[in-house]
Amino acid sequence: MTTEHASHRTDAPLAEVLRGGRVESLHLGVIVVSDATGAIVFSQGDIDAPVFPRSTVKALQALPLIESGAADRFGLIPEDLALACASHAGEPAHAAAAARILGRLGRDQTSLECGAHWPTNAAAARGLAAAGEEPCALHNNCSGKHSGFICVACAEGIDVEGYIRPDHPVMQRVAQTMTEVTGAAHDASNRGVDGCSIPTYAIPMRALALAYARFATGQGFSPDRARAAERLRRAVASAPFMVSGTGGFDTVVMEALGERAFTKIGAEGVLVASLPQTGLGVAIKCRDGGLRGAEAAMAAVLARFGGEGVSDSPVLAGWTEQELRNWNGISVGAVRVAEDLRRRLG
Amino acid sequence: MTTEHASHRTDAPLAEVLRGGRVESLHLGVIVVSDATGAIVFSQGDIDAPVFPRSTVKALQALPLIESGAADRFGLIPEDLALACASHAGEPAHAAAAARILGRLGRDQTSLECGAHWPTNAAAARGLAAAGEEPCALHNNCSGKHSGFICVACAEGIDVEGYIRPDHPVMQRVAQTMTEVTGAAHDASNRGVDGCSIPTYAIPMRALALAYARFATGQGFSPDRARAAERLRRAVASAPFMVSGTGGFDTVVMEALGERAFTKIGAEGVLVASLPQTGLGVAIKCRDGGLRGAEAAMAAVLARFGGEGVSDSPVLAGWTEQELRNWNGISVGAVRVAEDLRRRLG
Repeated sequence: MTTEHASHRTDAPLAEVLRGGRVESLHLGVIVVSDATGAIVFSQGDIDAPVFPRSTVKALQALPLIESGAADRFGLIPEDLALACASHAGEPAHAAAAARILGRLGRDQTSLECGAHWPTNAAAARGLAAAGEEPCALHNNCSGKHSGFICVACAEGIDVEGYIRPDHPVMQRVAQTMTEVTGAAHDASNRGVDGCSIPTYAIPMRALALAYARFATGQGFSPDRARAAERLRRAVASAPFMVSGTGGFDTVVMEALGERAFTKIGAEGVLVASLPQTGLGVAIKCRDGGLRGAEAAMAAVLARFGGEGVSDSPVLAGWTEQELRNWNGISVGAVRVAEDLRRRLG
Repeated sequence: MTTEHASHRTDAPLAEVLRGGRVESLHLGVIVVSDATGAIVFSQGDIDAPVFPRSTVKALQALPLIESGAADRFGLIPEDLALACASHAGEPAHAAAAARILGRLGRDQTSLECGAHWPTNAAAARGLAAAGEEPCALHNNCSGKHSGFICVACAEGIDVEGYIRPDHPVMQRVAQTMTEVTGAAHDASNRGVDGCSIPTYAIPMRALALAYARFATGQGFSPDRARAAERLRRAVASAPFMVSGTGGFDTVVMEALGERAFTKIGAEGVLVASLPQTGLGVAIKCRDGGLRGAEAAMAAVLARFGGEGVSDSPVLAGWTEQELRNWNGISVGAVRVAEDLRRRLG
């Protein structure tokens, strides 16, 4: 087993957790802000070391859903497309949307190969339990993405079964699309298995940011792909609740910013953004996998590079410095963007 | 607000998260292993920088419960004492034990000032919801510790109300005890507020490890305090389920090791151990607050320094390298002690 320790040595602070006037905990990591030509506008850390982007690439993986004609053929509405790009929280509206997509194919949750888990939204999990129910694959945070893959298979007359395998035609098309939009190889040499069982490919953070700059602008894409990217961004902006649910970073930020910013979290502290106003893409990896560190840093990066109507967003300010309250509602500290980073962002 | 970044620069790897043959995430931090004289047996990082120990000091905070005579006066059984040292998961047995302690005082959960939260054990939370119930302060992971504080107040004829405040006589006695056992100051200059609203004091990791070496051996304690420490260690060893509940590190490890090791997790990635066989105390802080990093490192440290019947424990091996399985049960990687650390532990 290959282990790579070297890249972490150039990590810099992303966010700090404060308590009693002290830094209680600290998150380090990598940031890259790229334009659609690959020019780097801002960075910290080793942006060339491969990182598993996890769920941050869901919007890129959804491009074949549009490009294949599957979305139109099965009459997917913007909410459905947003769910295809989502790591949702298993709330009732999320599970219902996944069921609706599958219903358009004459299918149900038994076609999903993502596995089942309790909703990540705790209230939704308790609600399910209170109703005497168990979770199914519809509640898996990836059920929308998987429903999208099944749409592609159905539109192209491909056998759905085994669609999660790297050698399935749908997964091969997804990997080919990812290779094209990121410019990074996607093959067995950099492949891991994701939580929902599809492949995840470790790619340089630089390539991930470049892909999302292209996703923001269409530059470097064919006209069809540029239109598909724009359609996905608009769908998500019209239904941000579908992307991460109640209180989630992506939902809260995109509800405030509309089409000015697309953001997407991934497991293990990865977070991306696509900024159409400034034509930039952003990729952040919190080295320890802590999402809170990536969120605070991303809020500060968005405020700096998002353009008009973004920099002064009070919602972003709330993520840049999040007050921590204890079980009695007493303010005990904060999670906030690291001072070093805040200073360098200017 | 003071911020201290310097100390993290000497952090070293604790644990790494593997996926697809690569290091996906990495946890850095501080380790110190001390004997009861303060001699350092093993360390990495800045062991003199102050760290909030959070819930890792609960067993030390429980010393006044024994020393005041409150435990005997109210007939507390070993399970009750274990709960007083616990960050429990709000499972039915935990809430029942807290209610039992308070019942011995003629009191109930309305005396608790820790606040309420849903059980941290997800199944327990769903069970409560399925029964149509809401959580109360008994389900707070600190309800046992707080019940112990109330016992001390009642035994000494002190007004219980406001027992969470730094200036309450019970909290002052606790701080005085902590100062004595750690040798570090506990005053307004290093005070923060913990999740359950009592004070938490930032102290050097060296002092935290020293306190737990003394707790293991009684060295440096009065005979009464040495007996109190031994009684708490034995109580916990007889009822480890009370300390963290189903699947928790402390419960699983202490169920396997019995009186050979006392361990206790705390919020923000702090973890301590007290090793009577070798007379050592251990303190670990995962800098980013990630408990998984501290757990993998602690398992390796225990195996190295725990003595007979510890080093070859298959349970510890399971925490030193924890396989990660996804929602379909597919092995996708592992959380394991960092290679550098494993090598240095020898």
